[in-house]
Amino acid sequence: MQAIEQANSEAIDRMLQSDPVLEDVITAGDAIPYLREGKIILHAGPPIDWQRMCGPMQGAVAGIAVFEGWASDLDDAVEQASSGLFTFAPNHHYSAVGPMTGMTTASQPLMLVVNRSSGNRAYCAINEGLGKVMRFGGNDASVLARLAWIRDELGPMMSGALRLSGGIPIKNLIARGLGMGDEMHQRNVACSGLLLRELSPWLAKVGSSGESLSKALAFMGSNDQFFLNVGMATGKAIMDPVRDIEHCSIVTAMSRNGTEFGIRVSALGDRWFTAPVEMPEGLYFPGYTEDDANPDMGDSTIVETIGLGGFAMGAAPAVAGFVGAGAASEAGTYTRNMLEITYQENPEWAIPAMDYQGVPTGIDIRRVVETGLAPTINTGIAHKKPGVGQVGAGIVRAPMQCFRDALRAFAQQEGVL
Amino acid sequence: MQAIEQANSEAIDRMLQSDPVLEDVITAGDAIPYLREGKIILHAGPPIDWQRMCGPMQGAVAGIAVFEGWASDLDDAVEQASSGLFTFAPNHHYSAVGPMTGMTTASQPLMLVVNRSSGNRAYCAINEGLGKVMRFGGNDASVLARLAWIRDELGPMMSGALRLSGGIPIKNLIARGLGMGDEMHQRNVACSGLLLRELSPWLAKVGSSGESLSKALAFMGSNDQFFLNVGMATGKAIMDPVRDIEHCSIVTAMSRNGTEFGIRVSALGDRWFTAPVEMPEGLYFPGYTEDDANPDMGDSTIVETIGLGGFAMGAAPAVAGFVGAGAASEAGTYTRNMLEITYQENPEWAIPAMDYQGVPTGIDIRRVVETGLAPTINTGIAHKKPGVGQVGAGIVRAPMQCFRDALRAFAQQEGVL
Repeated sequence: MQAIEQANSEAIDRMLQSDPVLEDVITAGDAIPYLREGKIILHAGPPIDWQRMCGPMQGAVAGIAVFEGWASDLDDAVEQASSGLFTFAPNHHYSAVGPMTGMTTASQPLMLVVNRSSGNRAYCAINEGLGKVMRFGGNDASVLARLAWIRDELGPMMSGALRLSGGIPIKNLIARGLGMGDEMHQRNVACSGLLLRELSPWLAKVGSSGESLSKALAFMGSNDQFFLNVGMATGKAIMDPVRDIEHCSIVTAMSRNGTEFGIRVSALGDRWFTAPVEMPEGLYFPGYTEDDANPDMGDSTIVETIGLGGFAMGAAPAVAGFVGAGAASEAGTYTRNMLEITYQENPEWAIPAMDYQGVPTGIDIRRVVETGLAPTINTGIAHKKPGVGQVGAGIVRAPMQCFRDALRAFAQQEGVL
Repeated sequence: MQAIEQANSEAIDRMLQSDPVLEDVITAGDAIPYLREGKIILHAGPPIDWQRMCGPMQGAVAGIAVFEGWASDLDDAVEQASSGLFTFAPNHHYSAVGPMTGMTTASQPLMLVVNRSSGNRAYCAINEGLGKVMRFGGNDASVLARLAWIRDELGPMMSGALRLSGGIPIKNLIARGLGMGDEMHQRNVACSGLLLRELSPWLAKVGSSGESLSKALAFMGSNDQFFLNVGMATGKAIMDPVRDIEHCSIVTAMSRNGTEFGIRVSALGDRWFTAPVEMPEGLYFPGYTEDDANPDMGDSTIVETIGLGGFAMGAAPAVAGFVGAGAASEAGTYTRNMLEITYQENPEWAIPAMDYQGVPTGIDIRRVVETGLAPTINTGIAHKKPGVGQVGAGIVRAPMQCFRDALRAFAQQEGVL
């Protein structure tokens, strides 16, 4: 028990001592050279093959294959996918994360967050905005045109600005966002604005034309979720150094591919513990119901893994309403519950509205199983069919089975079972 | 009584139906032609002459006289002021407001907020940033150089961007800010970011050089109080149409010149009811104490007059700490108290953290005197000597004497006394 306590304490120290800095935007094929070796698609969640992928993920795969020039159209892409011509792997296996379907392929620009205290790098694509977008399974011409603009204009512009800036430290932005109603999963409006404030002077210096700069500023400034992907890369940058600590029962990743939910635990290395993914309970956009909904999906649960999202609900009373979690005054209850399954509060990420309680940090699989409290996740909801997009937002619980299985493996490894 | 009730209801209707839009930045001498008629200085608060002005206001007067080229240096300016060579008048008499010392003179650029539902215009200077600045009595070369840059570069750039944009509606920005920890007096970080998001694409289109645009974006983006002056012009634009409603007991302005606090009441027209201004209770920056503090000052109390600032404390738990008002969880108490002295909640400006309670709107002088609850004001604190600047922030109560005197005059006018 003392070895576990020491190991978990070490894990929390690494999390709290992390120093994630948004440093650059890099073409995925340069960031992850493996992507150049074939028709390779990284996706959200634990490993999955084409046949078992949900509708929106299949839709995104078809779209990204056309985007990469591997397929002439969506039908061709689906045929190639069915014939096994594409190789699939989780983002998490390549220092990356992606929201919802989480498509990462060679030509896309990826934001680079470097954890300067440990030197590791983490990547996430640039957020595409709201509405019909690839992360929710959108794949029509408008979706691909936006991705092309991000690749050809916005990405290089952001890269130039970030290099000139020397990097934008992210921890303090998140700390400020927690005092401004963000929980960094379903609400990122404050951090998106704070990031724009930091980035825009450098964007202006990069020297692009007034029109293209204006378009970039308008794109970033009208997307309340722009920061989400930065927060996700930050989460990955913080958690990767926590992997592989002997005796450590802290969760290092939670992720979903739309079919299965998977977790990784520090002492158990890179093994995924999976269970069928659950259906979010939430609110639907006009015209949609839960009959349209795809089960939970995406690598974005990395933000809950570092104490944000559903764990920081008390910071975001407006989210409680948006995801159908009850009155604003009840938002703090979610955060207090998550303290039951985590190692400690994060003193650097305090919630002013909760008298500066720190966000619950370091999910301990032992406590999850003991208390029966599964991690609370704030999530977007995709339509279950390919090509439609987002239909709502809600709350979902991580399936307990993952934690039970992981705890059994952990107990065996520790020689308890 | 029914006539008063009807009149007050009309006043609230006008407040709620207002449509303040930030439309342009205009040279003060063009906005207010009177300013071109001599060495005329508009100041914060009710009328005051040089001899009775507090230290920081005298310091600001000396500085602005040098800035306008009326004096060769600060000593010369003080001598001219003492000799009666400058004409002083309140901003409030010319559709304007100014924070703290509130200097408004012919060559300064003023932001124009038009109330599109009633057509009236209101003006406020551009916020200078934090530290040693003229509104807190700063007057050295660095202060004047910054004002010159605002006049020569930032003002024209903002004017071009705002004209191109067609105007930025302000009510919705404030509504969003209330869900992001702003109360729009001592905390404007969210609204400053939201405004920058709206404005920056237009700034980029105006076509200034990369360097000058970058400087403007960095200036706006690093000033958490940038929105304060927009909120103030908004308050003036909302309240001016509420003036001169027969039988109406609603406060149309609260303001302080550093020596006296003054209020105006709708049915009592443009008469000021004044009392000696109070000393804020608050927290001081390192190295300063209340011995250094000047009493309360500025037109910024116009934001409390429209239900923000101290009235919206429940939206801004971080401010409660900053101004020394106790624990974050107690912030809502201030807002609930102000409901006792106001006509109703504002349904458009709701506080998510208080389960969407609307901000207390329409200060009724009868209720202030009946309850003995003076309006709560969140304020910055200036050093009492000229030239120093801000030394802290705190809470101050409007002096009850203003409200008692106004109520007596109101009762006489209504034939009750």
